[in-house]
Amino acid sequence: MKILVINAGSSSLKYQLINMETEQAIAKGTCERIGISGGKLTHKANGREYVIERDLPNHTEAISLVLKELVDPEAGVIASMEEIDAVGHRVVASGEAFTKTTLVDDAVMKTMDEIAELAPLHNPAAILGINACRAVMPGKKMALVFDTSFHATMPAYAHLYAIDYDDYKKYKVRKYGAHGTSHKFVAGAAAQYLGKKPEELKIVTCHLGNGSSISAVDGGRCIDTSMGFTPLAGVPMGTRSGDIDYAAAEFLFRKKGMTMAEGLTYLNKKCGMLGVSGNSSDFRDLTAAAERGDERSALALQMFEYACKKYIGAYMAALGGLDCIVFTAGVGENTPTVRAGILKNMQAFGICLDEEKNKQKNDGAIHDISAADSKVKILVIPTNEELVIARETAALL
Amino acid sequence: MKILVINAGSSSLKYQLINMETEQAIAKGTCERIGISGGKLTHKANGREYVIERDLPNHTEAISLVLKELVDPEAGVIASMEEIDAVGHRVVASGEAFTKTTLVDDAVMKTMDEIAELAPLHNPAAILGINACRAVMPGKKMALVFDTSFHATMPAYAHLYAIDYDDYKKYKVRKYGAHGTSHKFVAGAAAQYLGKKPEELKIVTCHLGNGSSISAVDGGRCIDTSMGFTPLAGVPMGTRSGDIDYAAAEFLFRKKGMTMAEGLTYLNKKCGMLGVSGNSSDFRDLTAAAERGDERSALALQMFEYACKKYIGAYMAALGGLDCIVFTAGVGENTPTVRAGILKNMQAFGICLDEEKNKQKNDGAIHDISAADSKVKILVIPTNEELVIARETAALL
Repeated sequence: MKILVINAGSSSLKYQLINMETEQAIAKGTCERIGISGGKLTHKANGREYVIERDLPNHTEAISLVLKELVDPEAGVIASMEEIDAVGHRVVASGEAFTKTTLVDDAVMKTMDEIAELAPLHNPAAILGINACRAVMPGKKMALVFDTSFHATMPAYAHLYAIDYDDYKKYKVRKYGAHGTSHKFVAGAAAQYLGKKPEELKIVTCHLGNGSSISAVDGGRCIDTSMGFTPLAGVPMGTRSGDIDYAAAEFLFRKKGMTMAEGLTYLNKKCGMLGVSGNSSDFRDLTAAAERGDERSALALQMFEYACKKYIGAYMAALGGLDCIVFTAGVGENTPTVRAGILKNMQAFGICLDEEKNKQKNDGAIHDISAADSKVKILVIPTNEELVIARETAALL
Repeated sequence: MKILVINAGSSSLKYQLINMETEQAIAKGTCERIGISGGKLTHKANGREYVIERDLPNHTEAISLVLKELVDPEAGVIASMEEIDAVGHRVVASGEAFTKTTLVDDAVMKTMDEIAELAPLHNPAAILGINACRAVMPGKKMALVFDTSFHATMPAYAHLYAIDYDDYKKYKVRKYGAHGTSHKFVAGAAAQYLGKKPEELKIVTCHLGNGSSISAVDGGRCIDTSMGFTPLAGVPMGTRSGDIDYAAAEFLFRKKGMTMAEGLTYLNKKCGMLGVSGNSSDFRDLTAAAERGDERSALALQMFEYACKKYIGAYMAALGGLDCIVFTAGVGENTPTVRAGILKNMQAFGICLDEEKNKQKNDGAIHDISAADSKVKILVIPTNEELVIARETAALL
């Protein structure tokens, strides 16, 4: 079975064609600058990279070009589109409308339009991608795989905000979380690596990248996560503030003469690592600058590590114990100093990092970086969101 | 030595005259409805309660009446105002302008005016009280004791928000915390009760009342606290939301057609326990309703307990260990079911409640409610913010 995984942004489209027998991508690539002049497709298959520069006026043209490459005698990997058994689409937000992977039909797409405003930067782009695929591959089975689904198991006391309950019911304002497919993947991979059933484990999964979220996974089910109604909340991120007192924001935006909406853009784009350091949103830049003695870059990293440490502590308490901590995504997989900073001084809870193992380079494999006497296993697990999307899609067929 | 402690609100004024040799209040009372018709003074001294109903057009009239009662041949406890060695004033917010208890002079009061907007509901009222006392007791030494001072030791990585650093410097938007005098009092009392030096202990103090905050105290110094720039942040409270994704608030207020400022009032007044339960902001009402089977009252309590549990976990991690948890203030001292809910399922961390000891009624004394095998001591300590204010004032003389 072959599943085509699509992750559509407003001006980009990533894809992987995954062979479910081997769970390997046999082709993958990215369309860039859709709807902008200077469009470009980068396609990787058969051990080679193919670049096509051509204007891509809309998502339909982009997906048509992708399919053309997939069946191309040279760059292609399949003889015809018939070999694609189904398409799995990544969707950021489901609201309360969808709690699990869902087959696409007209009614589903109508609901998708209704909830688009829950993730105004992401969901409308996903809809463009889905509609393009439906136009180009009529009759092909397609699944929506939501970033929020894994978090749908959070109990009410964890996913509700303490606002007027009628407002929650009417406007569906609550915690939904994000990065769910990644948290799900690494929690499952951790259990497999440790030779345990998911039901036996209490895990805190740390998806740390340009956007970061931390989840508490109890017996394979998510019981809490650090992102909120949107991906703004939780730990500080590349350019996002993470958690902040609403009254602090109101005071600041009033002083700066900003509207509530301008304030939202400020907190999403001008804050986090970039805002504190005044230097960069990129953890590689910050780590290098901190090593050179740049105090504000060091401060930004310290704030990030401290916030992650507190979420791990909070979720340890929520879980009533802890068997395993997983680090994944760009920063989680590749930045030993950040992992060490987060886990510093946690020996009292049986969390002991092996400093040498922690320094090992990311080679795409799972690594146990806990000390021999660590009660809690500490794992680095490269994430694979596309594989989760493909598995979910295949499971639905 | 006798210290008069003043806690002025916008239309009320509480006072205690404390004998520092015994650390007991020899008189205390409240002026109500200042500046509103129907003023009233309730004065307790000499084992009796005296009520005077009289319009109190301003804080100066109110404090004059208080002093008159204190030296009254029948209701009084001192022969003349000369016996009052100093006055200690409670002040909610210090900003970064004051980090410790400060003697009042004209320059200090000018700074107080400048930072008043940091706590618009509280600081202007305190200024009214201080100015009234200065008018009625010219030359008397007076100290400002700040709710925020105990939190001034928080390191930068704990007190900063991940916003643009220049905005922090310019507008002083950061975490200040609140209830500092209470956290300080119970942390000190816990060390004394346990026969330890403060330096030896890692304590989480839970001040749980209509407003609630939780602090991490390492060796006697506060390293973190749950309230933020204002007392809106942290765990959900009587009518306050506690922590919420700014983007969730922005979405909700946009939908409801509310301004940013109206939203702030909504989060402060219509949310929290009241908002979720739709019933009451009072924990006694909620506990009774939950026992009768009211699901939303039970949900509100569960959300509160869960949020407190997560803060305890986060601070355990921040402290790198834990010796003691303290419960204080109205709910913390008087609601065993809430304490049990917060500490449920924490045995993995050596936190074991004794269910029977936990049920003991509040008799004003300190009680150890931990099980015999609990590694972490769990104490209920009645708070005494007035005594801290008096001690701080006396220490400054």
